[in-house]
Amino acid sequence: MTPKSAIDAERIQRAMQSGKATDAENGDLHYVRFIHDFEDIARGTLVFDEGTVYGYPPIGRLLALQTGLAKQLSGPFWMEEKIDGFNIRVARIQGSPIALTRGGYVCPFVTDRLPDLLDTAIFDDQPDLVLCAEVAGPDNPYMESAPPFIPEDVKLFVFDMMRRNSPRFLSQDEKIELIRRYALPSVEIFGRFDTGDVKRISAILKRLDEEEREGAVFKEDSPRQRRTKHVTASANLSDIRTSVYSLLDLSPEYFTSRILRLALFADEQELERSDDLNRRAGAAFLDGLREAIRQHHREGRVSHRFRCRFRNPENARYLIQYLKRAAGHVQVVQRELKPDGEFWLLEFDRIYPSLNGLLSDWLAGKMVFD
Amino acid sequence: MTPKSAIDAERIQRAMQSGKATDAENGDLHYVRFIHDFEDIARGTLVFDEGTVYGYPPIGRLLALQTGLAKQLSGPFWMEEKIDGFNIRVARIQGSPIALTRGGYVCPFVTDRLPDLLDTAIFDDQPDLVLCAEVAGPDNPYMESAPPFIPEDVKLFVFDMMRRNSPRFLSQDEKIELIRRYALPSVEIFGRFDTGDVKRISAILKRLDEEEREGAVFKEDSPRQRRTKHVTASANLSDIRTSVYSLLDLSPEYFTSRILRLALFADEQELERSDDLNRRAGAAFLDGLREAIRQHHREGRVSHRFRCRFRNPENARYLIQYLKRAAGHVQVVQRELKPDGEFWLLEFDRIYPSLNGLLSDWLAGKMVFD
Repeated sequence: MTPKSAIDAERIQRAMQSGKATDAENGDLHYVRFIHDFEDIARGTLVFDEGTVYGYPPIGRLLALQTGLAKQLSGPFWMEEKIDGFNIRVARIQGSPIALTRGGYVCPFVTDRLPDLLDTAIFDDQPDLVLCAEVAGPDNPYMESAPPFIPEDVKLFVFDMMRRNSPRFLSQDEKIELIRRYALPSVEIFGRFDTGDVKRISAILKRLDEEEREGAVFKEDSPRQRRTKHVTASANLSDIRTSVYSLLDLSPEYFTSRILRLALFADEQELERSDDLNRRAGAAFLDGLREAIRQHHREGRVSHRFRCRFRNPENARYLIQYLKRAAGHVQVVQRELKPDGEFWLLEFDRIYPSLNGLLSDWLAGKMVFD
Repeated sequence: MTPKSAIDAERIQRAMQSGKATDAENGDLHYVRFIHDFEDIARGTLVFDEGTVYGYPPIGRLLALQTGLAKQLSGPFWMEEKIDGFNIRVARIQGSPIALTRGGYVCPFVTDRLPDLLDTAIFDDQPDLVLCAEVAGPDNPYMESAPPFIPEDVKLFVFDMMRRNSPRFLSQDEKIELIRRYALPSVEIFGRFDTGDVKRISAILKRLDEEEREGAVFKEDSPRQRRTKHVTASANLSDIRTSVYSLLDLSPEYFTSRILRLALFADEQELERSDDLNRRAGAAFLDGLREAIRQHHREGRVSHRFRCRFRNPENARYLIQYLKRAAGHVQVVQRELKPDGEFWLLEFDRIYPSLNGLLSDWLAGKMVFD
């Protein structure tokens, strides 16, 4: 019996015919994955035999907080921490909790580590619950950056909940109640504010910035569930710092947009000590690049080492396969997979052909006509 | 009588048919302008009734000095200062000296000011001489940057010489002899070096960097006249600082390539005090952008004021026409044209629609989905 709000077979058919959805599988698990938005169905939505897990919708960014909150939100809203990690939805499918990426893949890493990240017994009581969470930490396979308050491995932080077959989020009250009842790890909830509270909100953001935390999400406390986000200067600096290896592989707008955001945050929050901010901004660009050049002198190429821990080494192999497929022209090379206490430690390198090629040419004395 | 090395009518015909050259005029002056390279004829070449003024060829850039000099140059070479200005060729056409831009236009500004910039009597003795020079200074109509050693107005610095109807440069000896004989303003010539002299060359570059000067051109002392150039960290910082207004109008690679060059210069010259370099790099990006944001708050838009002096106000009007045609979607708006001592002072603004549009949206609280 298909629940009322699920996606019927005819829509799936149309989505697949127009290239917006595709058949997918993960081990024995077969499902339909929405690879793009289709009508009101978000990219990353997955349709399993037992129901639909909707995609996590994109959240618009405010560059100017004060005018932006007033313009975008009506009435009171919740302010929650935005954590520098990757977005995961956790749902129980065929009897086991699995972690789904934003794009709608099963994440072999987080799925493997779920028992370490939260008490999955919640799904015994709430089998149709979907937890929306950020996974973050230095030992993750996707990102070079991590919040400073996670010294090792990864942690999971719930920030939203859905139920199967509905794209709507649970109300803030219901979410907080479930977080408390099951002692779920969650993002910090700063409170319920109004657009007139910009001073208090700014003070929190300034503190987050000083603590090198990423920023905040603002969630309207209303049936339309409107959201918006805003990040700190530190977050923009972290983005720049951890992406200089991909300087030539990312869109160059990646950097210009972040430097503009940084300038806007500094302007709006009236950051003083501009010498200090300037030094940090310069360091974000230059420290990593200078290390990349030194690495190229030493090793003849530029790469970045990633490490993460697994309970089942088979999942590490799945992850490497997944990363290689997703890497584009960045190379993924496995270095180690070895027992490490109760875990298996995977180490792999990402190698950046564009930066390598350019540095090889330049350091060999090639002339450039620009 | 067409001189042997000039460009014959048939080639001009073919170049025009393939869109590489075009008819052009400036007042009573009619000529053919090469708007692109064509066979061995450089972009910016101009064919007048009385002969051809060849284009100034592009000079390849070295990112790594030590390997680069050894790889690109054979035998001894001259090292000369590279000045942060714009490239001009000065030739006498129809009895008057005129200044030609790199692209092959008559520059109304420099042409007007030639009597202030050099002793044009040289053309009485040497009517077919072509002076290749950099014009630089804070009061110029094209660039926001200027060398720190030019406190006001502009100066002209000869760095090469050609003769009409030949694309070859005069030898270094002949050039130096003419500079001396006619007391021409010229770039600083640091001397004649060999690829083994990298330490001495580096010491000069480091000093140029400390003095915030742009860099050097290396000219092989050989019949093939091979050249290459290398710029300082300061030059890259200056490029970034003076272009943040055009952050969205320039190619974004403009910034990434300069930050990479900066990292390479710092690495090769073993620049210490990386805190200081980082602070300067951050300031290059942020100081200008924060000022642009403040200007947007104050005036509702971002613009940059240019000023320059003319002897004949008619030339100021020609310049404004020329700038408006060349500006693309950047707006050029004249503010003042008034007598100023023995000169006419022109003031105009460049207004940057892309940055204005983006800042207007962002500061008004628009949400961005990225």
